[in-house]
Amino acid sequence: METHFNQIAARDVSRIANLSDSIFGVAMTILVLGVHFPRTEEIHSERELIAALGQLAPRIVTWLMSVLTLGMFWVGQHTQLDQLERSDRDLSWLHFLFLAIVTVMPFTTQLLAEFITFRVALFLYWTNLVAAGLSIYACWAYSERAGLTRRDLEPAVSKAIRRRIVTAQALYALGAVIGYFDPPVGVGAILLTQLNYAIAPRLPFLSRL
Amino acid sequence: METHFNQIAARDVSRIANLSDSIFGVAMTILVLGVHFPRTEEIHSERELIAALGQLAPRIVTWLMSVLTLGMFWVGQHTQLDQLERSDRDLSWLHFLFLAIVTVMPFTTQLLAEFITFRVALFLYWTNLVAAGLSIYACWAYSERAGLTRRDLEPAVSKAIRRRIVTAQALYALGAVIGYFDPPVGVGAILLTQLNYAIAPRLPFLSRL
Amino acid sequence: METHFNQIAARDVSRIANLSDSIFGVAMTILVLGVHFPRTEEIHSERELIAALGQLAPRIVTWLMSVLTLGMFWVGQHTQLDQLERSDRDLSWLHFLFLAIVTVMPFTTQLLAEFITFRVALFLYWTNLVAAGLSIYACWAYSERAGLTRRDLEPAVSKAIRRRIVTAQALYALGAVIGYFDPPVGVGAILLTQLNYAIAPRLPFLSRL
Amino acid sequence: METHFNQIAARDVSRIANLSDSIFGVAMTILVLGVHFPRTEEIHSERELIAALGQLAPRIVTWLMSVLTLGMFWVGQHTQLDQLERSDRDLSWLHFLFLAIVTVMPFTTQLLAEFITFRVALFLYWTNLVAAGLSIYACWAYSERAGLTRRDLEPAVSKAIRRRIVTAQALYALGAVIGYFDPPVGVGAILLTQLNYAIAPRLPFLSRL
Repeated sequence: METHFNQIAARDVSRIANLSDSIFGVAMTILVLGVHFPRTEEIHSERELIAALGQLAPRIVTWLMSVLTLGMFWVGQHTQLDQLERSDRDLSWLHFLFLAIVTVMPFTTQLLAEFITFRVALFLYWTNLVAAGLSIYACWAYSERAGLTRRDLEPAVSKAIRRRIVTAQALYALGAVIGYFDPPVGVGAILLTQLNYAIAPRLPFLSRL
Repeated sequence: METHFNQIAARDVSRIANLSDSIFGVAMTILVLGVHFPRTEEIHSERELIAALGQLAPRIVTWLMSVLTLGMFWVGQHTQLDQLERSDRDLSWLHFLFLAIVTVMPFTTQLLAEFITFRVALFLYWTNLVAAGLSIYACWAYSERAGLTRRDLEPAVSKAIRRRIVTAQALYALGAVIGYFDPPVGVGAILLTQLNYAIAPRLPFLSRL
Repeated sequence: METHFNQIAARDVSRIANLSDSIFGVAMTILVLGVHFPRTEEIHSERELIAALGQLAPRIVTWLMSVLTLGMFWVGQHTQLDQLERSDRDLSWLHFLFLAIVTVMPFTTQLLAEFITFRVALFLYWTNLVAAGLSIYACWAYSERAGLTRRDLEPAVSKAIRRRIVTAQALYALGAVIGYFDPPVGVGAILLTQLNYAIAPRLPFLSRL
Repeated sequence: METHFNQIAARDVSRIANLSDSIFGVAMTILVLGVHFPRTEEIHSERELIAALGQLAPRIVTWLMSVLTLGMFWVGQHTQLDQLERSDRDLSWLHFLFLAIVTVMPFTTQLLAEFITFRVALFLYWTNLVAAGLSIYACWAYSERAGLTRRDLEPAVSKAIRRRIVTAQALYALGAVIGYFDPPVGVGAILLTQLNYAIAPRLPFLSRL
């Protein structure tokens, strides 16, 4: 019987982790480049500089939202990888897909920053969040089905990993619905969701979800 | 007898892996920057924004093709490195060459996106694919010849690694030939090849190759 | 009792280290892009090129200051991580916060380079330094409180880590006060502080602090 | 007696390696961005595209030279780090200095590409090479003096590491002298030096140096 490439391919979890750290690191640093630099030639006094920086406020809000989003997904993926014994070809591709979706985040963030009152910009941003959530959920579901997880993995841990993704996606969907009526308020709702996940202790009613 | 630098140089495989993860990560994130951002000052309504995004379609196709290409080469190189006991100076330079070719991918991708109906753009893109394939093939051939592979490496594994590169290159060459007559259709053929490698289970007739 | 996601999340210190190396590496390389390239079309002789490069002097000073700042924080965080047994969700987020603040450094550095005589530019730069200092101090304080440090950690080591952050911040604050009266001189004072930390042996009166 | 921060700081060699891989990876990818993209709006036929790409030739030469330079320094530093038992604060700063010099390489490369007939551009490029060489030499000299190397390090290995740096620098200096009289020919000489180091077997008369 022949050995297929797929049977031996990409079995080292640490490579996924390293590629992820590289991509999250670059994406985080590129996000800042989306906060446009004030036009130097138009600024001649401290007052004008402060005014120019003040106009960056919406960009800083979308930047903060996206940094927190990257943090959430980084922590989530990190936790998944900690639970794996090994990887395989399909799981590597699933994580690669997840990471490709993460690289799009600076683009959709800048789109949202430029067109913060446009529904279509928020919709695309939310699509990016949904795609990231679906792919990272698929990563975990596949890891379990293919028996790649640690032997001592408790069912409660698996449940916690799934529940976190589903809850976050439910809150993003809520933000998207709100944004359908008022995009900037929708952005605010998603930002609050991310802050809730970043800052401990979390809101009591959410931590029970 | 003198010790030559080359006898002691660059023997740690994990350094090649780390450099690769850094370069693939940066290249993936830079690829997205090639999907031009719509011109803000020309857009005043949701309808105009949707139209502007719609015009990005060819760029999104070439982006997707290049992301899948990076994925294929990342999985392929990853699998090779998993089979190595140690590296040496020459192998490090060969992988460095492979990675230098990978860093050119965002350039040739953008060229193809801008000039998707031009044969020369597709030809250069395909040249990039061929160069990456030749160099990663050389990496493996050298690893075996220089005795750097794991002692328990089975011949079938080695054969599977070589076959995968040759098969992929044959399909790319087919895409290039088709593209000689109709560049966009050639792009489509290469994209289908990459999708075939990314999505499991692969097409039955190809998985037997 | 249910397992909360937070109990199992992000416990591997090496992931924080890897993400940090990625972000510091990208930030360092992006800093150089802030040293504007001379305008090619305006230069027709060696003399004009030398003059154009001479005009980059203030940008080179702020670049050097920021490189040294990144070095200081990299060494400081590195030393903290060396003392940790493991991480947890909250500590990962704290380091993520620290890293997000680091990604802003190229922006505030460029602002300072463009507007080196403006108080508000120096003030924002200094705010960036303070934010980085506060967050890395919080990382250490939390690590100790949550019992994440190595068991053999000596109290003197903990004290040395804290003292270094506080001393550096005191010197930055001094530079900011000087800069209130004369921004470029304030920049010089901060630059001297960074050089003091980078070059060993340090000034005797500071090393006793 | 008090514990100084410097006694406990930055002792893990693998962090230097990781930061280096990140910086070399980003620098390599950024180098490609210096190969200017042809102006889309001026190109209407395959012939015009080929002509536009042909004009990139000098940029491709400087790009190739710089990629090979990065490869040489990466292999050289990699080999040094392989010989270390541990690091300390001062060595971490020395490697940080070396890496900061590496991040400048895309800038001096682009300068050389734009002004390939200008002595001052070649002189600055060569200064960059000298600075990188001096700092990596200092890294090794310090590693040995501070007793950070592996216990089984043979004197011949140490000598080989030093000799390689000195020989390369001598050849770069020769290229710079030639470049004083004819800059493009000097570039060619440096490029040949790099190729000699990259391609095995090396020229017989050089490998004896």
